[in-house]
Amino acid sequence: MTRKVIFDTDIGIDDAMALLFLHGASEVDLIGITTVFGNASLADVTRNALYVKHRFAVDAAVHVGAGESLGQSMFEGYPDFVHGDNGLGNIDVPDVESMASSTDAADAIVAAVRQAPGEITLIAVGRLTNIATALERCPELPELASELVIMGGAFGFNGHRGNVSPVAEANIAGDPLAADRVFTSGLKTTIVGLDVTQETILDDSFFDDLRDNAGDAGGFVHDISRHYVNFHESSTGQRACPMHDSSAVAYVLAPELFETRAAGVRVVTDGPALGQTIWSDPEVRYETGDW
Amino acid sequence: MTRKVIFDTDIGIDDAMALLFLHGASEVDLIGITTVFGNASLADVTRNALYVKHRFAVDAAVHVGAGESLGQSMFEGYPDFVHGDNGLGNIDVPDVESMASSTDAADAIVAAVRQAPGEITLIAVGRLTNIATALERCPELPELASELVIMGGAFGFNGHRGNVSPVAEANIAGDPLAADRVFTSGLKTTIVGLDVTQETILDDSFFDDLRDNAGDAGGFVHDISRHYVNFHESSTGQRACPMHDSSAVAYVLAPELFETRAAGVRVVTDGPALGQTIWSDPEVRYETGDW
Repeated sequence: MTRKVIFDTDIGIDDAMALLFLHGASEVDLIGITTVFGNASLADVTRNALYVKHRFAVDAAVHVGAGESLGQSMFEGYPDFVHGDNGLGNIDVPDVESMASSTDAADAIVAAVRQAPGEITLIAVGRLTNIATALERCPELPELASELVIMGGAFGFNGHRGNVSPVAEANIAGDPLAADRVFTSGLKTTIVGLDVTQETILDDSFFDDLRDNAGDAGGFVHDISRHYVNFHESSTGQRACPMHDSSAVAYVLAPELFETRAAGVRVVTDGPALGQTIWSDPEVRYETGDW
Repeated sequence: MTRKVIFDTDIGIDDAMALLFLHGASEVDLIGITTVFGNASLADVTRNALYVKHRFAVDAAVHVGAGESLGQSMFEGYPDFVHGDNGLGNIDVPDVESMASSTDAADAIVAAVRQAPGEITLIAVGRLTNIATALERCPELPELASELVIMGGAFGFNGHRGNVSPVAEANIAGDPLAADRVFTSGLKTTIVGLDVTQETILDDSFFDDLRDNAGDAGGFVHDISRHYVNFHESSTGQRACPMHDSSAVAYVLAPELFETRAAGVRVVTDGPALGQTIWSDPEVRYETGDW
């Protein structure tokens, strides 16, 4: 049986890889792509989504989402040093004629879960602004959606803390308030954080192999990855990168590969811990406070 | 050569143990005890300090310090479930005739470091309210004091996060603003957190051995530890407790037993991470924000 999936994305180099991963998965029925600003501007990420949809014949509508955060963000501007000026590693990305849907991202999510209650898997690999907005418009979303799987956050396992501050990961730091609202909404959520993605490394030989043996999509992934690998090399000295957004897709396709923990999670919305994801250990009894 | 030490304490069961540990160390010249509310009220902890000083002939003045936090605290009331109603495990603690000094805690700290520049080691095992107040009154304290060693905080190593919230330790959570001011003041500071103290366990056989073989002080430590061990047994099922405050004393006496890291540390002063100590890894480059 195929699973109906909506892919919420600030597309983005690793987002484009994740989208093609989803597109290639026979067990997935990708019913929509929703865009959110983040790795590049809303206009850029929407153009990127339309371009990938067109080039690879992805049979899913593109819905335009949020262009600003609900609450305080850690960032101004866009991480062009990671994803390039256009969000796709500065490869040539022509405008395509196909248009985005007139239904916006949050409305598209709400309409989909109402039409197929219990059947829709949401995968979100950018800021959680669209998901939080959908929750605001449809408070029964937690009952209507099957589940949400996100790439974001960092919980400190194996020393994986933040990548944009000592404790914050970029997707969450871009809209901490939205993330806190989503994580406290009751929506069944699996968070694939840096604890996972930084343990899952893609190196140049992997991308070379894709280029040589995986057709047009492999060549495209190789080409957009050049800027991304260069950036990571400047930080780590290794020609390799973490597998961020595709790790969330991998969880949907093969959860048996993952070790999970059940925990409440809150997000810090200001101060030096801005954007931190905090999990409460159900096995520890805190004598004081709200935990 | 002996080291001049001021012991800042919310005395407290494990504080009393640490004070006797210091008192018994021949390489330490304990020149003052400064009190701060926390494990019990300011009146109770001051009485406890005077009692221990009197009973064990500790040759150091007791200076009364802060009775309230500088900023938002996680707590109301006192942790009688940990330290008993009187802060010393509900053993009989009579009032003693010896009086506290008329010089308050912060002034005593300032006077001491001015009188012996570069010679004074401050050991603080409660909220950092007195140290922060001394810094306010004497901005050159970081240059005048030799060093500060505290028990407090938690950094997540080996899974040691908070004991009063998922991310906060009690001493820091009791006055996060004071701690943040101290950690950003330039005062040379070593933080002995739960990462250390929860790895250093004292069990009932240890306390029995003290009672049987360590004279009056051993009997006293055994007696006050009954309430403390009972509390920890109710949380963990083990008749044992972490060695919190004495671990800071141990660091002063034998730093070679410890592994340290050099890092900047900030404290979160509100929100769900209230009281969290955050360290910034000098080996990681953060592209954004103030880190």
